[in-house]
Amino acid sequence: MMEITGSPDLLAYRLVARELTPDATVIEVRGRRIGDGFFGLIAGPCTVETREQTLETARAVAAAGATVLRGGAFKPRTSPYAFQGLGSKGLEILAEAREETGLPIVTELLDPRDVQEVAAVADVIQIGARNMHNFNLLAEVGRVPRPVLLKRAPSATVEELLMAAEYVAKEGNERVILCERGIKTFERSTRYTLDLSAVPVLKRETHLPVIVDPSHAAGRSDLVLPLARAAVAAGADGVMVEVHPRPEDALCDGPQQIRVGEFGRFADEIRTVVALMGKTVG
Amino acid sequence: MMEITGSPDLLAYRLVARELTPDATVIEVRGRRIGDGFFGLIAGPCTVETREQTLETARAVAAAGATVLRGGAFKPRTSPYAFQGLGSKGLEILAEAREETGLPIVTELLDPRDVQEVAAVADVIQIGARNMHNFNLLAEVGRVPRPVLLKRAPSATVEELLMAAEYVAKEGNERVILCERGIKTFERSTRYTLDLSAVPVLKRETHLPVIVDPSHAAGRSDLVLPLARAAVAAGADGVMVEVHPRPEDALCDGPQQIRVGEFGRFADEIRTVVALMGKTVG
Amino acid sequence: MMEITGSPDLLAYRLVARELTPDATVIEVRGRRIGDGFFGLIAGPCTVETREQTLETARAVAAAGATVLRGGAFKPRTSPYAFQGLGSKGLEILAEAREETGLPIVTELLDPRDVQEVAAVADVIQIGARNMHNFNLLAEVGRVPRPVLLKRAPSATVEELLMAAEYVAKEGNERVILCERGIKTFERSTRYTLDLSAVPVLKRETHLPVIVDPSHAAGRSDLVLPLARAAVAAGADGVMVEVHPRPEDALCDGPQQIRVGEFGRFADEIRTVVALMGKTVG
Amino acid sequence: MMEITGSPDLLAYRLVARELTPDATVIEVRGRRIGDGFFGLIAGPCTVETREQTLETARAVAAAGATVLRGGAFKPRTSPYAFQGLGSKGLEILAEAREETGLPIVTELLDPRDVQEVAAVADVIQIGARNMHNFNLLAEVGRVPRPVLLKRAPSATVEELLMAAEYVAKEGNERVILCERGIKTFERSTRYTLDLSAVPVLKRETHLPVIVDPSHAAGRSDLVLPLARAAVAAGADGVMVEVHPRPEDALCDGPQQIRVGEFGRFADEIRTVVALMGKTVG
Repeated sequence: MMEITGSPDLLAYRLVARELTPDATVIEVRGRRIGDGFFGLIAGPCTVETREQTLETARAVAAAGATVLRGGAFKPRTSPYAFQGLGSKGLEILAEAREETGLPIVTELLDPRDVQEVAAVADVIQIGARNMHNFNLLAEVGRVPRPVLLKRAPSATVEELLMAAEYVAKEGNERVILCERGIKTFERSTRYTLDLSAVPVLKRETHLPVIVDPSHAAGRSDLVLPLARAAVAAGADGVMVEVHPRPEDALCDGPQQIRVGEFGRFADEIRTVVALMGKTVG
Repeated sequence: MMEITGSPDLLAYRLVARELTPDATVIEVRGRRIGDGFFGLIAGPCTVETREQTLETARAVAAAGATVLRGGAFKPRTSPYAFQGLGSKGLEILAEAREETGLPIVTELLDPRDVQEVAAVADVIQIGARNMHNFNLLAEVGRVPRPVLLKRAPSATVEELLMAAEYVAKEGNERVILCERGIKTFERSTRYTLDLSAVPVLKRETHLPVIVDPSHAAGRSDLVLPLARAAVAAGADGVMVEVHPRPEDALCDGPQQIRVGEFGRFADEIRTVVALMGKTVG
Repeated sequence: MMEITGSPDLLAYRLVARELTPDATVIEVRGRRIGDGFFGLIAGPCTVETREQTLETARAVAAAGATVLRGGAFKPRTSPYAFQGLGSKGLEILAEAREETGLPIVTELLDPRDVQEVAAVADVIQIGARNMHNFNLLAEVGRVPRPVLLKRAPSATVEELLMAAEYVAKEGNERVILCERGIKTFERSTRYTLDLSAVPVLKRETHLPVIVDPSHAAGRSDLVLPLARAAVAAGADGVMVEVHPRPEDALCDGPQQIRVGEFGRFADEIRTVVALMGKTVG
Repeated sequence: MMEITGSPDLLAYRLVARELTPDATVIEVRGRRIGDGFFGLIAGPCTVETREQTLETARAVAAAGATVLRGGAFKPRTSPYAFQGLGSKGLEILAEAREETGLPIVTELLDPRDVQEVAAVADVIQIGARNMHNFNLLAEVGRVPRPVLLKRAPSATVEELLMAAEYVAKEGNERVILCERGIKTFERSTRYTLDLSAVPVLKRETHLPVIVDPSHAAGRSDLVLPLARAAVAAGADGVMVEVHPRPEDALCDGPQQIRVGEFGRFADEIRTVVALMGKTVG
């Protein structure tokens, strides 16, 4: 573990380090658990586009055994002219989907000024890859009573991810789930390069749960199942995948979304690897 | 230029594109100019640590011909336990340094909630590399009457940098200076890999001024002069370098800061290359 | 599939493409098989150091169910002052290990002038990552009646790896096994970044078997098991790992070698994932 | 400088290190010099395609003041179906071009079995980026009385380049010119990312001359001049650029070749920066 100075009091990430807190953290939301043998199967649309698309997807993933529903209301987009999400309206739709399916909700927070509004609906607050270095936003979610799903920035080392988690923990909120979602490399057959070595490295360095998002990493739906299986076999505590009724019509990231009708088989395949690893879908 | 769809109305970055606005933009602050033949020599401490350190540095860089004073009051740090800057007190010290030297000030904004406070002191608002993808922050500075210095994220393509600039321009503020400061690669003899090819690529793609920060890229002061010279020769409209009275005592990034006493020679060397390129230190 | 020109006759890699040869290739050596449901468990020392070290390792991996013995006689080393392998003497030791254990041998060829000597002992000729772009060496092994294990260069795209395989196939030898072994990125917690996405991408693009070397990628033995398991789950047709009686005394790459006494458990764990994937250790 | 062990006798690169040999090496061929204040202007076609194309280019670059003629006879190509060069016939054409223009020749060696044939014509033997890790080839050119132009592999660190040079020097040939030509990164607006920081880093670490190839790095001719100028300003001892009478008809790398008719202006621009740096085109 990196030290800021020679003193053990000044470890760069002491609250999240396994060295100082050997017991694995379990994140519990609405009866679902992630970490220490409990596996999180997080699924849902990239973006909340309409009430119908979201509810159809939510019902399908719930029926297939997903444990958490994901969906973006506030969307960070590379181009200012791309669809930016439904915002508050999207949060309402997610709340309705939870009401109907019972699934807890994870959704992204982009702006410290929206923290109360998002925390009022989200069971887990996501900090996206683009904001992993947005330290004021990290401190903000460190002060709300919600677990945080923190995604690795595409240029961040594993150590930088741990220090970002420490920003959240330092404010009092140690319920952080780390998420590997691909790093930037020269390879072009995938959108990013999924760094699965980060899973066992992180499991060794920290007591926090570690999950993997194969959808954003691959950028193509045909790779989501093999990469999700590999993530489980590498020791991940969960996977997060994108599902859409009609990926070809999606307003965002269509090519990487699994079709609703295929999610059942996906979930079945994942469960066999989860069982092999001695874990339980939580 | 990348198109979102086939329509010319939907270019991914149309306001900042040279294709649609052929004339080069000149940014003018307190009589200093950057762009279209005017070269910006931006220098100052990485971080405002004390009144004395800042004023000593400001006087030295002003005497040596710098055109803008840089200095961080709000500092984004990888570790939450590292010094985070003096905040509001740092802004006051920068204002005093401007009062005394007449140099315009560039300083970083980290949080949309601080925009009015920072804009009240800063002549140019810096968006740091870690926040290039913080689109709400970009939109915020797009609505204040201050030029913006936008640094490229270490994992951002040139195209992504242009789209980030478009976020600012779309809100009405087209006074954006782009800054190359190194990307993440496997090479370890420098902190980041300075991508000087980005300078001529950007000059071709956009009408905005393009500057280079060799200090952060190299992470070592002995490379700052050769890389700054190279930046000018590649066509940059300015360089931004870090200067400190005693780098060995700096609270942040000491190894990459030039000593105050060496800045005069640095400025002289840069001016000869600026002149060769047919430009004028603005 | 990339085309050199618009003509289907000029596909950049037509002999190795699955598009033109849908049936999966099976490589058979001394009764062992790799590909199309047969899984290769390749193990042995990084380098043949002594007769005793090699025989002890060979016996242990044979007893634990390995299907091929690996071992370097000619070693490419970054520094000219590092141990360069035993050369011809190393080949003799490998032949003796085969005699005793019955395991086929894979060993590396570095120089086209050594091809006959290496082919006389090797059951499979390895082209190392440093020589993936050594096209004359590729053509040379394309003309000998031995299967080739071709490792991906740390800077090669998946497409470049396929074109390197095409160099071998074009000379008449289509018995090529592709091996992912990590690419160069900015991440520093592992020696290279293992690109497991390359496995399903390659399985889709080519009919050749695809294996993974987690030892070189990770550079640390504690990651070899989780990464090997992940490779199997991603669809790999085999794994190649380094094993040593006393890694702390190894003349090359000690930190990444599994201890002889731990290989049995490693093999057991891999077999459970192989079985789950519906494959058989060949 | 990296040490293999703690002993100064076992430095990883001791023959090429400036630490042990402070005086800069000057490479002299047919009266032209590179290093220690002498600047090499190396130009010519990527590939020798025909006698006419080569002679036309050679005359033009000689007239414009180039000091060395480059041209490929043996070409390493990513696809086995791409044009592989004229081989021996290409060497004859290069010899004729030298006869007519007086320019010394640099051409690439791919195979240790061709070393005598290439050395009989080449004044400087090039080891290409793809063969930087081909240690047997490096040792081979270490035993011939010809200077070696050693290109950095696109995935090699600066330290690995120095160790490759040490392979040549260790065999007795210390006349090595190092060449930066771009590394593999995620950026897509250029073919590779030119790492100009490597120039001052190498100048500090080694006494060998350091040159830059902006043509291969950029992959587009419009960037060659600004990047070459930047290379000179960063302290390079030379540049190597590709020139063709009709780039649009080139059999290899057309988009990155400068037109013959534009080379005169290119050379003039480079000379002004060379002069500013206190150097002389050698």
